[in-house]
Amino acid sequence: MIRFGVIGYGYWGPNVVRNLRKLERSQVTGICDKSEKSRRRAAQDNPGVPLTDDPAELIASPDVDAVAVITPVWSHFELAKAALEAGKHVFVEKPFTSTVAQAEQLIELAARRNLRIMVDHTFLFTGAVRKIRELIDEGTLGKLFYYDSTRVNLGLFQHDVNVLWDLAPHDLSIMSHLIAAKAQAVVATGEQHLNGHADVAYMTVYFPGNVIAHINVNWLSPVKVRTTLIGGEKKMVVWNDLEADEKIKVYDKGVQVANGQGLYELLVSYRSGDMWAPKVEQNEALSTELSYFLDCIEGGKNPHNDGGAGLEVVRMLEAADRSLSERGRLVEL
Amino acid sequence: MIRFGVIGYGYWGPNVVRNLRKLERSQVTGICDKSEKSRRRAAQDNPGVPLTDDPAELIASPDVDAVAVITPVWSHFELAKAALEAGKHVFVEKPFTSTVAQAEQLIELAARRNLRIMVDHTFLFTGAVRKIRELIDEGTLGKLFYYDSTRVNLGLFQHDVNVLWDLAPHDLSIMSHLIAAKAQAVVATGEQHLNGHADVAYMTVYFPGNVIAHINVNWLSPVKVRTTLIGGEKKMVVWNDLEADEKIKVYDKGVQVANGQGLYELLVSYRSGDMWAPKVEQNEALSTELSYFLDCIEGGKNPHNDGGAGLEVVRMLEAADRSLSERGRLVEL
Amino acid sequence: MIRFGVIGYGYWGPNVVRNLRKLERSQVTGICDKSEKSRRRAAQDNPGVPLTDDPAELIASPDVDAVAVITPVWSHFELAKAALEAGKHVFVEKPFTSTVAQAEQLIELAARRNLRIMVDHTFLFTGAVRKIRELIDEGTLGKLFYYDSTRVNLGLFQHDVNVLWDLAPHDLSIMSHLIAAKAQAVVATGEQHLNGHADVAYMTVYFPGNVIAHINVNWLSPVKVRTTLIGGEKKMVVWNDLEADEKIKVYDKGVQVANGQGLYELLVSYRSGDMWAPKVEQNEALSTELSYFLDCIEGGKNPHNDGGAGLEVVRMLEAADRSLSERGRLVEL
Amino acid sequence: MIRFGVIGYGYWGPNVVRNLRKLERSQVTGICDKSEKSRRRAAQDNPGVPLTDDPAELIASPDVDAVAVITPVWSHFELAKAALEAGKHVFVEKPFTSTVAQAEQLIELAARRNLRIMVDHTFLFTGAVRKIRELIDEGTLGKLFYYDSTRVNLGLFQHDVNVLWDLAPHDLSIMSHLIAAKAQAVVATGEQHLNGHADVAYMTVYFPGNVIAHINVNWLSPVKVRTTLIGGEKKMVVWNDLEADEKIKVYDKGVQVANGQGLYELLVSYRSGDMWAPKVEQNEALSTELSYFLDCIEGGKNPHNDGGAGLEVVRMLEAADRSLSERGRLVEL
Repeated sequence: MIRFGVIGYGYWGPNVVRNLRKLERSQVTGICDKSEKSRRRAAQDNPGVPLTDDPAELIASPDVDAVAVITPVWSHFELAKAALEAGKHVFVEKPFTSTVAQAEQLIELAARRNLRIMVDHTFLFTGAVRKIRELIDEGTLGKLFYYDSTRVNLGLFQHDVNVLWDLAPHDLSIMSHLIAAKAQAVVATGEQHLNGHADVAYMTVYFPGNVIAHINVNWLSPVKVRTTLIGGEKKMVVWNDLEADEKIKVYDKGVQVANGQGLYELLVSYRSGDMWAPKVEQNEALSTELSYFLDCIEGGKNPHNDGGAGLEVVRMLEAADRSLSERGRLVEL
Repeated sequence: MIRFGVIGYGYWGPNVVRNLRKLERSQVTGICDKSEKSRRRAAQDNPGVPLTDDPAELIASPDVDAVAVITPVWSHFELAKAALEAGKHVFVEKPFTSTVAQAEQLIELAARRNLRIMVDHTFLFTGAVRKIRELIDEGTLGKLFYYDSTRVNLGLFQHDVNVLWDLAPHDLSIMSHLIAAKAQAVVATGEQHLNGHADVAYMTVYFPGNVIAHINVNWLSPVKVRTTLIGGEKKMVVWNDLEADEKIKVYDKGVQVANGQGLYELLVSYRSGDMWAPKVEQNEALSTELSYFLDCIEGGKNPHNDGGAGLEVVRMLEAADRSLSERGRLVEL
Repeated sequence: MIRFGVIGYGYWGPNVVRNLRKLERSQVTGICDKSEKSRRRAAQDNPGVPLTDDPAELIASPDVDAVAVITPVWSHFELAKAALEAGKHVFVEKPFTSTVAQAEQLIELAARRNLRIMVDHTFLFTGAVRKIRELIDEGTLGKLFYYDSTRVNLGLFQHDVNVLWDLAPHDLSIMSHLIAAKAQAVVATGEQHLNGHADVAYMTVYFPGNVIAHINVNWLSPVKVRTTLIGGEKKMVVWNDLEADEKIKVYDKGVQVANGQGLYELLVSYRSGDMWAPKVEQNEALSTELSYFLDCIEGGKNPHNDGGAGLEVVRMLEAADRSLSERGRLVEL
Repeated sequence: MIRFGVIGYGYWGPNVVRNLRKLERSQVTGICDKSEKSRRRAAQDNPGVPLTDDPAELIASPDVDAVAVITPVWSHFELAKAALEAGKHVFVEKPFTSTVAQAEQLIELAARRNLRIMVDHTFLFTGAVRKIRELIDEGTLGKLFYYDSTRVNLGLFQHDVNVLWDLAPHDLSIMSHLIAAKAQAVVATGEQHLNGHADVAYMTVYFPGNVIAHINVNWLSPVKVRTTLIGGEKKMVVWNDLEADEKIKVYDKGVQVANGQGLYELLVSYRSGDMWAPKVEQNEALSTELSYFLDCIEGGKNPHNDGGAGLEVVRMLEAADRSLSERGRLVEL
């Protein structure tokens, strides 16, 4: 039985607590939140679980084996560091940290103490992403050409970060998971209209082998869109996460370059076949992820969404910020 | 009665001929195409109209008052120049020319000879774009925040240009028409996978007053998308050109920044009201455009989609090419 | 404070309990379910609330002012009757009863004891139905022509009733609420394929003034559909309950009959204008409904969804069963 | 070379003429229309083809081997009869005739003279219907459960027939083609609101083996819908004819009845797997159909959409009219 202390009971924290309590191998032995209102809500939802407004107290508790840090990004580093120093495993909300340097320090610390860090890239545990990964791994899509995501809606505005830090981590972690290569460089453009942070932004990530990723994030869109196109040489995928039933559509469409004879010859031919929507597992991703974290703690192995994976996302966000502030300058990673 | 010679009877030329013949104030007195197959088709469609494979002959004909140049972009300059030098008005397919220098030369030439140039930015004459322009002009949308277009599909691959020159001119002309300001700078990223030209590309255009435009074009998409989001301070528009009936949706959604007291105060509030799909005129845009060209020729006035408008689009494409080749470097206009 | 005993803690019961507990004027003082598993779940969800497997005990309890009967339809009559006889107000799941005779008996009993009956026609309290009712009441739609609903999906099969009794009560109650007239006659057709009950059925209801309603229900549909068309002389409505944001679309479309001169004259003309999606209240309908029930109990007035409204639905279902078994014979109401 | 005379050059006639002229084995040697305006249009479209306003003249012409009757249904019988009596093959617009008696007379006449009748059930020659037929024939769907079509839009109102005669023939011919059994009985309900003919109607057709078909037709719908659900024991199909690319979706969903032990046992289980949109041929159906008619004439064999198939549709329409006028009375076929 692994005992968790959870810091942060705002929007996402209650889901982490609920899932940890439902799993058979874990329990929640402490919840911490600065806000009295949140603590009242925590008490109502979880009668009997000790509450505190002091993270240090929770981290120090001998009843806590692992700490879940479900707070705003600026506080991740201090809380995770304190937890690791106290010998506790850490589950951290994404993005992992505010800077690359912080992430590297936490990774080093965890390695030294032989503790696990898991960064909460929940999407990697959805049926949809698992299915796409499977399609790539088994060669169905063929060589990858591009990953192109649109993730827009009205709000929620964050006060301390721009729209890239709020919405892009989802895609950055997914794309890192799907594309078997390290990102090389980042270009980001965008604009701010309301509160001093970019609220509309576009990010291109260059990968080796002519693979390109693009992320369109926007807090000022009248409609919610969660659509990703993934182009491969053999097949192409449209993933619409707002669809209830057919989230993933695999198109048997492709392009072939043939030898043309002259200037006016058509050099490229198209193939257009069936479309296929594979059944996608309907699990609750967070539960699968936390269960996997328990495996990793018990087995003493690093999760694939460990500090290193979290660091990659932060590295790209940091580069994107720099590119954004210089209106699209290429930032090598 | 204005008599047209039409050069180019491939994909779009037949539509230009058909509309010119249907209008009461114009007729087609000559069609030119290098390809015998195209001339056979032209003969079948237009019995009695003289055909030639020699553009010079058509341009020189005393029965031709205006020349429509419906050929690949690399040939626009020579043909339009010859036509203007022969004292003929010119209707040119978009993009206007291959370079800014060519466009400037044609504009200068037309001005000197007091001839009209119209660049075929057909979309400006659709009911949808006219309605959006109306919504902006009458203040319904309020101050503009962004213009964000996705224009992707499988093929058609062009041999002589990349996907930006093929698909972006639509959006560049529409956005220039809607945003009452001059573009300041361009950032373009993209990648090529098949025939040496970028087939996936993303283009950001910066305008004064924090207005930003973004264009996503792709020849390798399994699905066809033609969707543009336009964000304004008061209302926002989603234009889906593939919808048969409700192409334009106007959302009474908005964001307001309020004064917050502290770090944790929510500074931004949302408004979410009705949605409204105004009836959009169902005309054939090309017919409206050509009729407007006849007005301009007869009235001796420049159309809004004149050489200058065409030049703006070419200027942005040229800048985009430069930016693309340097992986996103900002190119000032 | 009105104290509820809730009988039935299966699929819907937990929602009733949760909402009654959240409302300030009501509390739940007892829950009854025959199944031990359901009682365990009830205990977990509602620590401290007394549980029983004996409805008689709950009904007799002096701590219970009103009884919510959230059980299969065949048990409604006995339970509601016992509750009324014990002087308790009754909230009953739809359909109200298994027969017209039972419904009439309960209504009579409640009237005699001056107790309230509310039949749980939850849909009447959704933002969507309230908005449609408003559009009708204020004359926006004009004279009604038809109500046409499709409510199909895969399962859930019921054991004791056919698909009409399972799915049609929603539409029958909505349509009764919207059409200001009494249904005159019913025709039902359908077929059974699996377990001896019709799993595909179609029901036409004739109203005075040439108003017609049609309901398409199906347990064997591969896709879920919840779409209702409502045609009026002035405007028409499409209500798609599966849409997250734009559930109701109002079309400014209509038809006018003009005087034609001869056999070949076109006698009818169409009007096609804007479409408009009014903002729809996002409340939880069940909470609004229960709050209204508290008003009715406190104010001693009958709800609009009282026993009489429930009876109307049962009368149409009974007629539909008769029509179905005689393959579409018209059954007058 | 088979020479056609075409009677009727209104909405559909021009398509028949265009396709007959394009096919290599047929030509059009005469066009007849009462309306001068239609004849002018025919002359413009088809220079050199003889025109007349007298059907008798066209039918009698020695240059005509086959007559296409593309006129309102009330005129089909007289024209087709005259053509057959003149020894000409006949292609007739659907519905075949106004009455069963007329259809039987034409069939008998054609048989006696050894002439071909083809009824223009164009939909049978679309890629979509051919694909569905293939799925049924090869056993993919398993035993059929139901065919449920919705075919609604605003107008066009017909003057001489109700909405069933206007819109239902499509579905009646498709369903007859797909269901390998003879319809047994018909129930129709509906209502009229404007010009004395039912403009909203619902039709149930009973087949042997518990197969049921239902057709929902409506001239007063604000939106156009062309959706058919086809339920089979093994798989189910959704055919949305308004989709550009994925007209047919095959769902690997099904229902199985298991042995239940008690009253509360779940007796039915569901299977929910992949969805698959097979590529559908993009031919022009009318061209395929006319080419098949040429085969039949040349080969002296009856088409599957012959007079007998047309008669079946008329028989169901006649029964539906009777049922409609008696508000849903079952009419045996």
